[in-house]
Amino acid sequence: MKDKKIGFVGLGRMGGNMARCLNDKGYQVTAVFDITPSVATDLANEINTIAYETLADVTANADIIFTVVTNDEAMDAIFFGEDNLFTGAEGRLFINCATLTPAIHRHLEAAASKVGARCLEACMASSIPQARSGELFLMIGGAETDFNANKSILRELSKALHYVGEAGKASEVKALVNMVMNINTAALAEGLGIGHALGIDLKMLCNIFSQTGANSRVLETDAEDMILRDHECYFSATHAAKDSGIALALAAASGIHTPLAQATFDQYTKLTKMGKGELDKSGIAELTFKDRN
Amino acid sequence: MKDKKIGFVGLGRMGGNMARCLNDKGYQVTAVFDITPSVATDLANEINTIAYETLADVTANADIIFTVVTNDEAMDAIFFGEDNLFTGAEGRLFINCATLTPAIHRHLEAAASKVGARCLEACMASSIPQARSGELFLMIGGAETDFNANKSILRELSKALHYVGEAGKASEVKALVNMVMNINTAALAEGLGIGHALGIDLKMLCNIFSQTGANSRVLETDAEDMILRDHECYFSATHAAKDSGIALALAAASGIHTPLAQATFDQYTKLTKMGKGELDKSGIAELTFKDRN
Repeated sequence: MKDKKIGFVGLGRMGGNMARCLNDKGYQVTAVFDITPSVATDLANEINTIAYETLADVTANADIIFTVVTNDEAMDAIFFGEDNLFTGAEGRLFINCATLTPAIHRHLEAAASKVGARCLEACMASSIPQARSGELFLMIGGAETDFNANKSILRELSKALHYVGEAGKASEVKALVNMVMNINTAALAEGLGIGHALGIDLKMLCNIFSQTGANSRVLETDAEDMILRDHECYFSATHAAKDSGIALALAAASGIHTPLAQATFDQYTKLTKMGKGELDKSGIAELTFKDRN
Repeated sequence: MKDKKIGFVGLGRMGGNMARCLNDKGYQVTAVFDITPSVATDLANEINTIAYETLADVTANADIIFTVVTNDEAMDAIFFGEDNLFTGAEGRLFINCATLTPAIHRHLEAAASKVGARCLEACMASSIPQARSGELFLMIGGAETDFNANKSILRELSKALHYVGEAGKASEVKALVNMVMNINTAALAEGLGIGHALGIDLKMLCNIFSQTGANSRVLETDAEDMILRDHECYFSATHAAKDSGIALALAAASGIHTPLAQATFDQYTKLTKMGKGELDKSGIAELTFKDRN
């Protein structure tokens, strides 16, 4: 697929690094765009490509366009705003990587087909270093034929690649992944917070957790950060609240009662309202350790 | 320590199997007792020991006495009832293996020292097969000298042995282990319940959970049981409610707000009140899958 021209819209830490990764691997990154023009020109200088000033120019100058923007509103703006990616989009493939509500992926797929374009959703359950190194965990939604036709470029970006189902399904799965992760994180923060208040050695407690039914991935990734109050952001509290909120909406629409997801959403929302939304998700421990508030 | 005479009080599936294990390993199990006399005589016949009719007789005929009863009330009865283990207990060591409130371990230690006896708390984070095979996960509270003096017999029963601190500390740690485990279990049940309602393939969902931040020990142990509704009991919903309740009391006494532990306690209490308390902890999925209620 190295004959295809690749575009990128949304050049934050994820999108920018995915562009660098494909460029390193010999793909033709021909067009980049960011809402902040200097971000786009900086990246264009770095990887020797062109920063366009309009979205329509990106569509005009690329075959496959990755969008890596922040949320539903931003997606709405780049696809349905006055200057938009659907202009002259016949034959284009859009690979949409933001964490969005499942509904917008279904809406986008329908809108794309009207202009003769295709969409895939590519939900990422990984972070910045994995974007840079092409080791993302990718869950793909959309038409299986489009997935199969574009597997090779998706493989370049990922160490794990799952086709999940029709448009919207990957977002649903991702929302559930993050919902469970967030609850487990909140659980760990409560366990360590109580342990701390009881004067239990937290290193020993984590060691015991790791050998028992209390073990979890977030124990590995977040326990030490919670203890040391090292909340440098990999996945923000605000994002955690957003993703848990998407899962809660799915639960409500399905008539499923999810009190744990609700309690976790409430904790992350509280943290955000306290002005601590930009802490990493481990920052939830600020709510459960004595004397941190 | 094979010169010591070993007694067992409380011969349920845990206690009975611990007695069998030590007997297999060549220890002298000299005295057993159960609230249900036929349980004691059956075990006595099986491992060729003596089932006594009074607790005082157990104390009279053993040096080290393991107690493996169900709860604080049962502990109160065997140590402070009319017929009790403290009668003639000078020089005896009691190793108390039930999941109890931390306070009762401190109370017992003080009462034991008045009659010249010693106590260790031995909290188990394992199940029946591990009791039988001597592969328990043991957390010990009490005087460190008593722990060190009795390490060898504790090692025979365990594959992991942690000295946690003074009397009561092991129960605190165990309550936190089970609290976090229960929350993670409730989280998984919500994730799978929503996934099921959305028509997502649950095997694929579990596979994705296992590769992401949603991974946990309970994903390995409980996910399939939740999907198949196979709630054969290893750790009951009633026990889950009890242990989460102990942790909640510790949190409240420390002034820590723990909404996740509370929501999980509420779910397990609800399940118990529905008459499903004897389901395994995986039974919490009965509350989060559509059409199961």
